[in-house]
Amino acid sequence: MKISVCQINSIVGDLKGNKQKIIDGYRKGVNDNVELVVFPELALIGYPPLDLIEKKEFRKAVMNAAEEIAKKTKNVGLLFGSITEDDDQVGTDVHNSALLCFDGKIQFIQNKTLIPNYDVFDEMRYFDSAKRVDVFKFKGEKLGISICEDIWNDSDYWCIRRYSNDPVNRLILGGATILINISASPYAYKKREDRREMLSVLTKGNEIPLLYVCYVGGQTELIFDGASMCFNKNGDLVKMGKFFEEDYFIFDTKINYPKIEIVERSFEEEIIDSITYGLREYCKKLNFKKVLIGLSGGIDSAIVTYFAVKALGKKNVNVIMMPSAYSSKGSILDAEKLVNSLGINSNVIPIQPLFDNALKNLEPIFNDTTPNIAEENLQARIRGLYLMAVSNKFNYLVLATGNKSELAMGYCTLYGDMSGGLAIIGDLYKSEIYHLAKYINKEKEIIPNEIITKAPSAELKENQKDQDTLPPYEFLDKVLKMYLEENKECKEIIEELGDDKDVCKILNIVDKNEYKRRQAAPSLRVSTKAFGYGRRFPVVQGWRKK
Amino acid sequence: MKISVCQINSIVGDLKGNKQKIIDGYRKGVNDNVELVVFPELALIGYPPLDLIEKKEFRKAVMNAAEEIAKKTKNVGLLFGSITEDDDQVGTDVHNSALLCFDGKIQFIQNKTLIPNYDVFDEMRYFDSAKRVDVFKFKGEKLGISICEDIWNDSDYWCIRRYSNDPVNRLILGGATILINISASPYAYKKREDRREMLSVLTKGNEIPLLYVCYVGGQTELIFDGASMCFNKNGDLVKMGKFFEEDYFIFDTKINYPKIEIVERSFEEEIIDSITYGLREYCKKLNFKKVLIGLSGGIDSAIVTYFAVKALGKKNVNVIMMPSAYSSKGSILDAEKLVNSLGINSNVIPIQPLFDNALKNLEPIFNDTTPNIAEENLQARIRGLYLMAVSNKFNYLVLATGNKSELAMGYCTLYGDMSGGLAIIGDLYKSEIYHLAKYINKEKEIIPNEIITKAPSAELKENQKDQDTLPPYEFLDKVLKMYLEENKECKEIIEELGDDKDVCKILNIVDKNEYKRRQAAPSLRVSTKAFGYGRRFPVVQGWRKK
Repeated sequence: MKISVCQINSIVGDLKGNKQKIIDGYRKGVNDNVELVVFPELALIGYPPLDLIEKKEFRKAVMNAAEEIAKKTKNVGLLFGSITEDDDQVGTDVHNSALLCFDGKIQFIQNKTLIPNYDVFDEMRYFDSAKRVDVFKFKGEKLGISICEDIWNDSDYWCIRRYSNDPVNRLILGGATILINISASPYAYKKREDRREMLSVLTKGNEIPLLYVCYVGGQTELIFDGASMCFNKNGDLVKMGKFFEEDYFIFDTKINYPKIEIVERSFEEEIIDSITYGLREYCKKLNFKKVLIGLSGGIDSAIVTYFAVKALGKKNVNVIMMPSAYSSKGSILDAEKLVNSLGINSNVIPIQPLFDNALKNLEPIFNDTTPNIAEENLQARIRGLYLMAVSNKFNYLVLATGNKSELAMGYCTLYGDMSGGLAIIGDLYKSEIYHLAKYINKEKEIIPNEIITKAPSAELKENQKDQDTLPPYEFLDKVLKMYLEENKECKEIIEELGDDKDVCKILNIVDKNEYKRRQAAPSLRVSTKAFGYGRRFPVVQGWRKK
Repeated sequence: MKISVCQINSIVGDLKGNKQKIIDGYRKGVNDNVELVVFPELALIGYPPLDLIEKKEFRKAVMNAAEEIAKKTKNVGLLFGSITEDDDQVGTDVHNSALLCFDGKIQFIQNKTLIPNYDVFDEMRYFDSAKRVDVFKFKGEKLGISICEDIWNDSDYWCIRRYSNDPVNRLILGGATILINISASPYAYKKREDRREMLSVLTKGNEIPLLYVCYVGGQTELIFDGASMCFNKNGDLVKMGKFFEEDYFIFDTKINYPKIEIVERSFEEEIIDSITYGLREYCKKLNFKKVLIGLSGGIDSAIVTYFAVKALGKKNVNVIMMPSAYSSKGSILDAEKLVNSLGINSNVIPIQPLFDNALKNLEPIFNDTTPNIAEENLQARIRGLYLMAVSNKFNYLVLATGNKSELAMGYCTLYGDMSGGLAIIGDLYKSEIYHLAKYINKEKEIIPNEIITKAPSAELKENQKDQDTLPPYEFLDKVLKMYLEENKECKEIIEELGDDKDVCKILNIVDKNEYKRRQAAPSLRVSTKAFGYGRRFPVVQGWRKK
C-alpha cells in the first residue's frame, strides 16, 4: 500500500488551522496517487489539549470539524487523530481516537487503549480506554491501527509493563498486514533511539511493516521532535521524517527500500536543535517577535543569548547588562565581548543607583541589621524589574536564564533572575551547559572563553562564588540527576557515590525549594524528568524531618 | 460496636510524626474501651503525597512504619490509611489501602477501588485499583471498609457516574453490618452538605450504620475541613467531628443517639473559617511565625490583613503602605484607619523616589515612548521589591493579595502585586470579597467603610478605575463563575446572560492570561474549581483564534 505520512505541527485548540493542515495534506496525498494519508495523534486538536477537552462546546466543535474533514474525502483513505464521545455514562465518555475516513464519511474509529498517566501525561483525566481493538480491511490490506502509548507495551521488549493488555498484539493476532501507530511523543534526549529500537524489535518479531507517524512542534514546555519512522517487515528502518520540523513523505509497503543507517547524534547537537526549536515555536505561537535577556557575563545568560540568536536571528535579540558593585571587571568585559561576537542589540543599566535608593528607603525598617540574603536578592530583583519594564514597553519576551542545578537548589531569586516567560535552559544541568558552551566554541570562539573558564558566581556580594554555597557542580549534578531523573533516594545515592553528608543535604535543599519552582517560568523539557508539571512534589511536607 | 473516630491532621511525608499520632489515638481508644479505632485515608502518609509515592525508599519507609504501628496493637482493632504494594508487575503496583491491625499484625487490607483522577486529584498516577472487595468479620460484625471515592458512586444518588462498578454496593451485598469509609476530601464551599446528603441517602437506603472518618488540615492550597460523620441505619446523622480542627470521639453502633439537626452556615462564616485555617496551617507547617502584606487602602489587601490577624494574631502581622503619586488621599487614610482598627505593625515607604530613579535609568531605552503598561507595572513591581526585601530580611511570609477575578483577567502584575508565598483570597471573586467585608463589619466597623464603598482602583495611573478596563464585577464574576466553575463556554453563557461582545472578550482574556497564572502563588482552594493544579490549561493555544 502506498501511504503519505504527514508529520504536521498542530496548534492546540486551533481547530480551523489544524483542519486546514489536514485537508491540505490529504490533497497532496491524493495528487501523489497514494491510497492512504496518515496524520499524527490528536492532529485536529493539538497535543496536549489539557482541560480544553472537558468543555462540551469545544468537543462539539471538534466533532463538527472532523465531519467537515471527512466530507472532503473520496476514494483515498484519510487517517487522523481526534476525539470521539461515547454515551455509556461511565467515566469521561471521551476517547482519544484515530478516525479513518473515505467516501465522504468517517468509516472506522479505533480508540486508544493504553492511556498514559505519568510524568507529563494526564490522559486518564480526559480519556476512557478503548472497549475494542479491531483490524480494518482497506484496499486489500488489514490495517492494524493504534495510538501512541498503545505500542509501548510489547511484552518482548519491556520487563515491567504499565498495562496488562497489549492492543498491538491483538491487532497482530487479528491478522493485521500493516501496523500504523499515530503518535504525539514528547522529546527527551535519547528517546528517539528508544522509539526506534522498540519499534524495530516489534516489527522484526512479527514480520509486519509499520508506520509510526509523529507529531512535531513546540507546546509551551514540551517539544515534539517529529522523526516519523517506517519499518519494513524485517525490522529495518527504511523511511524517517525530519527532526524538529514538519515533513511529508511517501512510504510504499511494496517497495524494497534500503535500510537507513543511523548515525547517532551527540548530546550537544541534539540539545542545541531541540532548545532552538522549542524557543522558536514558543515565540511563533505566542506571536513574540523579539526577546530580551539580562546578560551578566556568566555562562547561563551567555548560552541563553546564543540560543536566542540561533532561534530568532540577531536582530530579534536584545540584552541588557546590569552591572553592580559586585560585578567583576571580567564579567562586564565578557558580556561586551559576547554582544560583539553575536552582533546583537545591547543596553547597559548599572543597578547601583536603584540599589542604593532602595536600601535608603528600607533603612527605617532594616535599621542596623547585618546584610543578608535580602540585600543579595534585592539586586537580582532590580535586574528583574528593569527587564520586565523593557519587556512591557516593547513587548519583548524575557527569557529566564536559570539552569536545572540552580532551580533544584533554589540558588536563584524569585521575581529576580527567575523572571521571564520561558526558561529555555531550565532542564539543563550546569555541567551540561559547560559541555554545550565548549561544543559551540569548537570551531570558533563564539562564547568568550573566559566565560567558560572562570569560576561561576552570582556576583551578589563581595567575592561570592557558587561553590561557597553549593557543592562542586560535577558532583552536585550527578546527585541531582540520580535524584530527579532516576528517582533514587538518599541511601541509594550514597551507596553509589559514597558521599554521606552532602547527599542528604542536597536532597533536603531540593525539596525545600519546591515553593520557588511552583512560581517558576515553564522550562523547555529535554530530559526524561524536567521541573514543571511532569514532576509534582508537595510544597508542604515532612519526609526528611528528623 | 464501640468505635473511636480519630480525625487527625497528618503532615505529608512526615512518617515519624504521623505514626506517633496514630499510636497515640489508638492508645486513647484502648483506654476508652472501644473495639476499633479508625483513622482517615493515608493517615500515615498525609494527603496528597504526590510524587513522593513514586520513590521506592519512601514506600519502604512507609511499609516499615505501618508494621511498627501494627506491632503495637493488641485485641482492639486499628484501622488506618496507608499504601501497600503488589507484585503483578503491571501498572504502578501501589495501592491506596486501609489497613486493619490487631494482635500485633496487619490482619486485613482493603485497597481503594475507585481512583479519582480529575480536578486536583491525580491518583491514577500513583495507585492501581483494588482487585477485590471483601467484608471482614470482626468482633461479631461484618465490616465493610472503603476509601473516600469508593463511596461516591452510589447509583441511587448519581445520575452520571464516573465509574462502572460500585465497591460499596459489593460490601453491602457481601453482608456488611457496619460501613466504614476513611476519607481525605478537600474542602470546597457547600461540599460538606453534599457529603452529608449523599451518605445519608446511602445509609437510609441500605439500613446499615456508617462511619465516615475524615482527614483535617491544610496542605499548601488544599484545605481539609474534618467534619467526620456517623449515621445510624435510618440515615440520620448522629455524630459529627469538629470543623477545621483535629477531633476524637466515640461512636457506638448499639447506642440510640439523637439525630443532629444541622444549622446551615452562611457563605461568609464558612469562608472566613476555611481561609483562616488554610493560612494558619500553611504558616505552622512551613514554620513561618509572621506574615507581611502590602496595604494599599483597597479592599483586597484590607481583607487579607483581616484574615492574617484572625489566623496569626495581630502581633504577627506586618504591613507596608507604599503610596505613589497616583494613590488617592482616601486610600492612604483608609489604610491607616485599618492599621489602627486592627492594631498591627505598619511601615510606610513611598514608592515615588525609586519609581523616578528607575524611569531615569530607563530613559536611554524608553526614549520618548508614551507611558503604557510598562510604567504601571513598574510601580507594582517596586512594591513587590520592597515586600520581598523585608520578607527576606526578617523571614516574614509575604501574602499575595490577588483575588480570583483579577487572576482570571490578568488584572495583576507578575512579580508585582502577584508576589508572595500564598494567595489566600485567590479563589474568591471580587464580588464575594465585598460580601465578606460587609459581613465582617456587621457588628463593628473593622474594615473602614470607605474601603468597601469607594470604586475599586489599581491606582497605577491618574484617575484609574478597575471598571475602565474590566466589566462591572457583578457581571464579570457571573461570567467567570460560569466559565470556570460550571465549565460553560461562550454560547452557553450568552444564552443565559444575554451579553454578546463582553462574554467572548472575557473568556479570551482569561485564556490569554494563563501564562501569568502559571507563575502565580498557590491559591487557597475554597471553590469547586480554583486556579492552580486542579485547572490545567495550555499556555500556548488557539481555541478562540478567528
